[in-house]
Amino acid sequence: MRLLATVTYDGTYYAGYQIQPNQTTIQSTIEKALMKLHKGETIRIYASGRTDAGVHALGQTFHFDSSLSIPLENWTRALNSLLPADIVVTNVREVGDHFHARYNVKQKTYQYMIDNAPIPDPFQRHYMHHVKHELDLNAMKEACSYLEGEHDFSAFCAANHTVKGSKVREIYLAHIEKEGHTIRFTVSGSGFLYNMVRIIVGTLMAIGEGKMPPETMQKIIASKDRSNAGKTAAPQGLYLKEVEYHTFD
Amino acid sequence: MRLLATVTYDGTYYAGYQIQPNQTTIQSTIEKALMKLHKGETIRIYASGRTDAGVHALGQTFHFDSSLSIPLENWTRALNSLLPADIVVTNVREVGDHFHARYNVKQKTYQYMIDNAPIPDPFQRHYMHHVKHELDLNAMKEACSYLEGEHDFSAFCAANHTVKGSKVREIYLAHIEKEGHTIRFTVSGSGFLYNMVRIIVGTLMAIGEGKMPPETMQKIIASKDRSNAGKTAAPQGLYLKEVEYHTFD
Repeated sequence: MRLLATVTYDGTYYAGYQIQPNQTTIQSTIEKALMKLHKGETIRIYASGRTDAGVHALGQTFHFDSSLSIPLENWTRALNSLLPADIVVTNVREVGDHFHARYNVKQKTYQYMIDNAPIPDPFQRHYMHHVKHELDLNAMKEACSYLEGEHDFSAFCAANHTVKGSKVREIYLAHIEKEGHTIRFTVSGSGFLYNMVRIIVGTLMAIGEGKMPPETMQKIIASKDRSNAGKTAAPQGLYLKEVEYHTFD
Repeated sequence: MRLLATVTYDGTYYAGYQIQPNQTTIQSTIEKALMKLHKGETIRIYASGRTDAGVHALGQTFHFDSSLSIPLENWTRALNSLLPADIVVTNVREVGDHFHARYNVKQKTYQYMIDNAPIPDPFQRHYMHHVKHELDLNAMKEACSYLEGEHDFSAFCAANHTVKGSKVREIYLAHIEKEGHTIRFTVSGSGFLYNMVRIIVGTLMAIGEGKMPPETMQKIIASKDRSNAGKTAAPQGLYLKEVEYHTFD
């Protein structure tokens, strides 16, 4: 039976999602819990994609195969009883035998949180990126509008990353809002290149700081050159919020 | 010159407020920062009161004496540049030479946060106490109403604590509210006995779970017997929210 799980995690103390030698990762921690549940059998999990060290998830997804006869409604509790408190499974559903958590993705949504108070909130130090000086929200809003649509996002892909295939992606929504001192950037798209959201946010922050005008965003996209975009924003503000699928068959 | 500082801290990784041998505490960390600022001179700080290991503060206060000629508006930044990211000074003001951060307290306000969702939020594991089963908010509200006023709170004082003097305290406000799955208990009073807020919350939770009716709160207060009250609630839900003073002279 193939199962699809939705998981929320605080990425602060993990070396990212993907398994790495001698490191505690989200994947290795979940696979360890599944191995216990399966009496020592190795169960490989396949996520919608990786998240970097320090990056969080509100709705990451992964699929795996199991021959256990646990009733579906008990899977969430069974997994959570074996997972540490910073990784919590919120849903488990049955999917078709050919479903794949990465290849079947229709849309992914990320969120990036900025603490824009003059004095940083100590409770948010692992959960938001702090910017002391007030960012120009209207400039950032205008810059956001240039992101929407289908573009070659080469300028927003980590320079050291060798991506196979096209760097064209479609962004369905790019939205920025402020509540109190908290800025929340939300972006939904068909898919994202490595570090793409963090480089977009770094560029938006440079625009918010007045280092470049909002319309520069268009030129950066058109240039397809990573060196024109802003810095890669810090990981702790980033959340993989939601993964949507075409079909669960 | 005597200065009064307001400080916010995430108490998760500290062995409480007060200095203890071979432990990292809030007090020792702040005094270390002050010592650096004063070129090696020991500067003792005096807080409004202690907080236990894992307990947080939104507005703890402490006073200290300094002969440094730092302009008042630069003190906050000077201290924060020497403090770790989980302790943040939000305000520094000058007070009279006889002012004392503990003895001059008029009113203290605490807040206790409960995550009452069926599945715990991993981002709140250090910042709320999780209760899986839905608590009866109306019963807890009724129980709250019996707390207000002047009472001998012996039943809500840690049994192993030898308090000198009266255990009569006045509670000005005891309020409980729910937003989504989050329950917030707020209590203001003239002063609080050791563990008093956590024992009150433990009793409120027993009432919310239906283990005792709301009016039992009155009987527990009248009994002055710690063994009648509920368990001491977990530290991570507790915040010292605000300290108010009669005078700053």
